[in-house]
Amino acid sequence: MIRKDSTICAPATPHGGALSIIRMSGPEAFGICEKIFFPADNTTRIQEQDGYRIVFGEIREGSEVIDEVLAGIFRAPRSYTGEDSVEFTCHGSSYVVSKILELLIMSGATTALPGEFTQRAFLNGKMDLSQAEAVADLVASGSKAAHKLAMNQMRGGFSAEIMRLRSGLLKFASLIEMELDFGEEDVQFADRYELRKIILDVKELSDNLASSFRLGNVIKNGIPVVIAGKPNSGKSTLLNALLNEEKAIVSDIPGTTRDAIEDTIIINGLEYRLIDTAGLRETNDVIENLGIRKTHEKIQQSSVVLLVDEVTEPVEGINGRADDIRKMISGTDARLMIIVNKLDQVPQEAADDLSKKIYTDIDESLLFISAKELTGLDRLKRVLGRVVDKERLNKEDVIISNLRHYEALQQVSGSMSRVISGLEQELPDDLIAVDIRQAIHYLGEITGQITTNEILGNIFKNFCIGK
Amino acid sequence: MIRKDSTICAPATPHGGALSIIRMSGPEAFGICEKIFFPADNTTRIQEQDGYRIVFGEIREGSEVIDEVLAGIFRAPRSYTGEDSVEFTCHGSSYVVSKILELLIMSGATTALPGEFTQRAFLNGKMDLSQAEAVADLVASGSKAAHKLAMNQMRGGFSAEIMRLRSGLLKFASLIEMELDFGEEDVQFADRYELRKIILDVKELSDNLASSFRLGNVIKNGIPVVIAGKPNSGKSTLLNALLNEEKAIVSDIPGTTRDAIEDTIIINGLEYRLIDTAGLRETNDVIENLGIRKTHEKIQQSSVVLLVDEVTEPVEGINGRADDIRKMISGTDARLMIIVNKLDQVPQEAADDLSKKIYTDIDESLLFISAKELTGLDRLKRVLGRVVDKERLNKEDVIISNLRHYEALQQVSGSMSRVISGLEQELPDDLIAVDIRQAIHYLGEITGQITTNEILGNIFKNFCIGK
Repeated sequence: MIRKDSTICAPATPHGGALSIIRMSGPEAFGICEKIFFPADNTTRIQEQDGYRIVFGEIREGSEVIDEVLAGIFRAPRSYTGEDSVEFTCHGSSYVVSKILELLIMSGATTALPGEFTQRAFLNGKMDLSQAEAVADLVASGSKAAHKLAMNQMRGGFSAEIMRLRSGLLKFASLIEMELDFGEEDVQFADRYELRKIILDVKELSDNLASSFRLGNVIKNGIPVVIAGKPNSGKSTLLNALLNEEKAIVSDIPGTTRDAIEDTIIINGLEYRLIDTAGLRETNDVIENLGIRKTHEKIQQSSVVLLVDEVTEPVEGINGRADDIRKMISGTDARLMIIVNKLDQVPQEAADDLSKKIYTDIDESLLFISAKELTGLDRLKRVLGRVVDKERLNKEDVIISNLRHYEALQQVSGSMSRVISGLEQELPDDLIAVDIRQAIHYLGEITGQITTNEILGNIFKNFCIGK
Repeated sequence: MIRKDSTICAPATPHGGALSIIRMSGPEAFGICEKIFFPADNTTRIQEQDGYRIVFGEIREGSEVIDEVLAGIFRAPRSYTGEDSVEFTCHGSSYVVSKILELLIMSGATTALPGEFTQRAFLNGKMDLSQAEAVADLVASGSKAAHKLAMNQMRGGFSAEIMRLRSGLLKFASLIEMELDFGEEDVQFADRYELRKIILDVKELSDNLASSFRLGNVIKNGIPVVIAGKPNSGKSTLLNALLNEEKAIVSDIPGTTRDAIEDTIIINGLEYRLIDTAGLRETNDVIENLGIRKTHEKIQQSSVVLLVDEVTEPVEGINGRADDIRKMISGTDARLMIIVNKLDQVPQEAADDLSKKIYTDIDESLLFISAKELTGLDRLKRVLGRVVDKERLNKEDVIISNLRHYEALQQVSGSMSRVISGLEQELPDDLIAVDIRQAIHYLGEITGQITTNEILGNIFKNFCIGK
């Protein structure tokens, strides 16, 4: 739903702090502000105020003072949304915030939908669609790498390149359509060599960007690391040691951990989602069996499986459990790390001896730790750090992290492949034109040059209120 | 610890919103700002900027952009703290916020202590101490009445009156001390009639304010309402019906509710703290016995006890349980309300009949409800509303809600009583002077004209960070 005539308002900060921000944007922002906000100097008129000014005053309901606030004034088009806007900074009381919102609504404002401020910024040409999406990613970013991804995208990222290639394609599409208009005359306005070149450029860019999605996705959402292993091998203790807090319930009763518990840890600017799992043993307990099924799913979706085992176990058992995991992850992108725990319970020689007998594939790691005594954890963190292609991250390469972009880019790549083989097989121009048009469409969807209410609705419904 | 030379910074909003505010205040605020914040127009110089201006720009670490932010500029003394201040509004990402704080600290700022911004506002004469305390109450206020109390106090409240009486006392104290200097000569500079008058004024004001504390305290912290009664009488169902949500665990097994569960409900602008209790029955269960002891404590500290009983119970049992409660609350300020539940299980005549046989004291209420079918709850809320002296609340009377003020006012009142009887008994002037000085001291502590680091420390340590 696009409503440009209304003036919207929403809190932009959660409850519980010293201060709160309430945003208002739309054609009536200043008029509504004047109805409930009274500048302390008695002379300032909000309607006549310059933008980028702060006015101190009172929010009043009748004669009752609700709060003393700062009102930040922004005049269209020089505001976040491109509309007249007011940002109130009030005291962070739940009563005050809800009262001010109530007064704004009584005075003619409407509650903003999630993401509606950013949607207006997009509709008013303040940013393209991929930049608008990056705003939500930026707000959600909790690690250095996720922040960098979002910030690159918010500041333009690949938009300019996509727009350039798209307008190149558009030119050729028009030329080819002109040829079609000439029908039988068999003229060629579109230089086939140039066309082939731009098609290859578009395909290369879309393949490149699409291939970065896996990396971008784990950076944005956290790298999924499943902690698996037989009951009582110390999975929860390891999780706790890594988290350095007591989020998982640790107990000596095998089978204690039933739900997949998730928590995040940041190592070297990357976020890892640590997933503790139900013990991988045979059981008749229905709830626990559900847990085990969940474990299998989690393992297959992970980037890393930490198989936690015990240094006191027979080597055949360890190798067997590693093989079980290998079977589960074959065909997926998950990597196995064998973590032999309880190093504190045997002499070092026994561990050295065991280490020679445990089989590891290429690309797998074998580490000996004591989760209880916190030994070997630094090395474990270093090995975890290597899971991600840091080089690509550190190069100023563009990395996409948005599923919508990924799917559009795959469509573009597919269209380009068909155009290339169509050109090779000298297919009729009208067939080629269809695929070019399709690529133009999907490229336009990424930047928002082409949108539907459905696309906009899907994007902004995931924003928080007040953004 | 008072540190006026440092420049402090802190987040003023919690994590999890669209936007975050980071505050900075102190002599180096503008200089530190210029090290990490780069105005978008490349020409604005923060140091030369007018106050009450907003500047748009980037926070950078080296060449890397951390965020695009708004910087609100406030020049001393026209700021909250009275110092040069900058308020950054950035995207609400936990990474961005912690990174900006890190950069500010690297550039010379210090992490603010809880309440340090408000403490500086007090030290710089922007507000007196009772106003500073009201800021914390305002931020915490969740009901209309609590908000009104805090707002009255923040906007001056009783400070002016206290300061006026205190300076009156100071004048007399000086005159009496001059008389003492004259020793044997027996001169009287201080008019005893005028002195007596001001002493009575001070006593009346302090008694009046002190007597408002009980009301102010329950308004600020919520009116404690204990829901008591025999097991399975429907206490949790009633609690849930009042809360309209499922916070208490309801079950058919007697003795389910072991912990005192607390939740709040707002009726007509007043906050009630509803406290569900362990069943009041004899038991051998250790945990449950602990719960019952807790129930007794909670009952004695409450403003209202809702004794929940069942319409199907013999009247002797109900009267007996009501008597038990009466014994527990005798000597306290708690009031008993007998709530006969499960009205849905008998015909109305049976209930009418029962109601005649249940004994109620004056000041007690008897209500018949069905928590399950939500009948009688509106009347229950109305009766709860009468617990508080609304007239006093609605009169523009000053109501104190701060324990520190209450204790100081009691000291003042005591001193004044001693002065009055001293004057009557014509005690020596030096004894009278001691009590006047003591009253002056305690009045000064309320407004902060007299403070110690300990008093300031105690007050501001309870503030949130960033306030």
